Amino acid sequence: MEQAQQYVGSRVNPDDLKLFCMRAMEQAGLSRRHAEQTAEVLVTTDTWGTFTHGTRQLVPLLNNVKKGALNAGVEPEIVSEGPGWTLIDGHYAMPMVSSQLAMRSAIDKARSSGIAYSGVRHSSHYGAAGYYALMAVEHNMIGLSFSNVDVCMTVPGARAPVMGTNPLAYAVPAGEERPVFMDIATSVVAISKVIAAKTAGKPIPDNWLVDEEGRPTTDTSAYPARGAIQPMAGHKGYGIALLIEILSGVLTGASFLSGIGRWLEEEPKPADEGHAFIAMSVESFMEADQFKARMDSMIREIKNAPKAKGVDRIYLPGEMEWERSEEAHRSGIELPDFVLTNLFKVAEENDLLENLISILKKE
Amino acid sequence: MEQAQQYVGSRVNPDDLKLFCMRAMEQAGLSRRHAEQTAEVLVTTDTWGTFTHGTRQLVPLLNNVKKGALNAGVEPEIVSEGPGWTLIDGHYAMPMVSSQLAMRSAIDKARSSGIAYSGVRHSSHYGAAGYYALMAVEHNMIGLSFSNVDVCMTVPGARAPVMGTNPLAYAVPAGEERPVFMDIATSVVAISKVIAAKTAGKPIPDNWLVDEEGRPTTDTSAYPARGAIQPMAGHKGYGIALLIEILSGVLTGASFLSGIGRWLEEEPKPADEGHAFIAMSVESFMEADQFKARMDSMIREIKNAPKAKGVDRIYLPGEMEWERSEEAHRSGIELPDFVLTNLFKVAEENDLLENLISILKKE
Repeated sequence: MEQAQQYVGSRVNPDDLKLFCMRAMEQAGLSRRHAEQTAEVLVTTDTWGTFTHGTRQLVPLLNNVKKGALNAGVEPEIVSEGPGWTLIDGHYAMPMVSSQLAMRSAIDKARSSGIAYSGVRHSSHYGAAGYYALMAVEHNMIGLSFSNVDVCMTVPGARAPVMGTNPLAYAVPAGEERPVFMDIATSVVAISKVIAAKTAGKPIPDNWLVDEEGRPTTDTSAYPARGAIQPMAGHKGYGIALLIEILSGVLTGASFLSGIGRWLEEEPKPADEGHAFIAMSVESFMEADQFKARMDSMIREIKNAPKAKGVDRIYLPGEMEWERSEEAHRSGIELPDFVLTNLFKVAEENDLLENLISILKKE
Repeated sequence: MEQAQQYVGSRVNPDDLKLFCMRAMEQAGLSRRHAEQTAEVLVTTDTWGTFTHGTRQLVPLLNNVKKGALNAGVEPEIVSEGPGWTLIDGHYAMPMVSSQLAMRSAIDKARSSGIAYSGVRHSSHYGAAGYYALMAVEHNMIGLSFSNVDVCMTVPGARAPVMGTNPLAYAVPAGEERPVFMDIATSVVAISKVIAAKTAGKPIPDNWLVDEEGRPTTDTSAYPARGAIQPMAGHKGYGIALLIEILSGVLTGASFLSGIGRWLEEEPKPADEGHAFIAMSVESFMEADQFKARMDSMIREIKNAPKAKGVDRIYLPGEMEWERSEEAHRSGIELPDFVLTNLFKVAEENDLLENLISILKKE
């Protein structure tokens, strides 16, 4: 989209972007609260620089509402609960709404239980796994977040996609240091990196893809029509992805493996992904301040370790995201072209072009 | 040890081996119960074929008792607990004793809480992480087990060991299929594989080690004096190892990173490793039979996936271990030479040579 390209390099205030997203979603029939909860997840993800999972996903999310794979007008429902667990039927409400409900419930229960688990079934793509893990941190809790996703990754011995690149995220509070925070897929790299190498005509390391016969390949030419992405760390990543499949899919009553619908495609079948969330209250084990001081001490020992040649800094998981987030809140988010293209599409379809242009500040 | 070599190829009945281990430990001052619990973990590990973590560890364990880094005569103590958590001070009792207490407690609490966590501090090498995860399976629970260990692994950007190869294990019950079961270190490979390549004079893939300047190397010649092993999957494995460090070390009040003592060395300083265990009761979420049928369905879908060229079988995590374990219970365990060497050492030091020889059945 030509118009979007003109705004590459401009910056947008996160609050302005959030309001824009909310307006678009309200016009698509979402309640103000659902629109706000969804926008909060998407915009926060953009502030980390994780643009693949941020506001660009408004287009497929609203497309899912349009095709009937997500329901604008329903609320997720708690179908069973106990002292340390909650099971939620998402009823295909916006996945970010069901997921926040689930994580809030885990946090509430972990206060007395020490640890609590929430599962969600009948859901769809929940955005960045890490958002929900981070919700725990402000309550002096450790947060974990998992989801199964539609099949696109092979496993050792197979030659075709068997599982999803099931994401895993966690966040842990610290004291003077920033919370430790990780949000990863269990594939060796993101599929977008394979596509980028293919576009650039570059070979890839031989642990990224298998070809249609299941052999490791450095050639991206047949992908994604044939071949599949590999799990991180071979059989170890396969095993971790499988644990996530069980915690978020098998245990919640959601679909799993090939049963999961493809939310990005035009088929109206709902995805039926499942999500799993765990909160652990550090105050069950020691004073929060003591825990945080111990975290600071661990973090500093790692940062102060002898550096590899040519390296001047060792990063803790999440440090890059915190720095980008601080910059985004200070100076606005600099959205890359593929995000702008998506936002302009949303703006056009919802008669919000003027609003979008007004919030994009060119330098 | 020459005598040990004569028995390579012989098989030992797991129960006989357990009794031998118990006798040796009782002579070292352990109570019968502690000796039995420890032997149970070590021998079970041998039945899986995970010989690096089985009865061969009797030598260093008893050496730890001798040097005062483990206490033969104490009991681990529950120092705090709540509806879904238990915190245990191991008081440097045998780590297998503290760990079984911890996992049993998590299982008991998960029955009403849905999920429960147990942490252990003031412990040492707990053997194979997977033993404790598997304890949950017979109670229709999912089990997880983690430990921090002494520093030997680098992290991205560092040039020296910063963390341990913190192990992670899980086990999940199934129905007609065997439980899914994984027990891994978070390093890219076991250190023993690096040493084996070094002994054979073979180069290694460049993601196994960094050299003393922190650069990936295929040359093992300076290791382990200089350089360090790499985490699995680069920054992803680093992040997962760090989560384990937090759950088992920071949260329990155990030592972490360089604070952990080296249990294999002669220094009398206790290791002060920490362990973390989680149990989740599937019956909180659905009937156990329904869960198991869903697990079977997931397992079969993976096993029936299209195979890579030249592959006739896709393995689930744990399948190889189950098959070795069944074979071991049917025909005895065929112990490799390095295990036999260790067992003969224990036998000699504890006047149990005749006993050991009597249980080794040559074909």
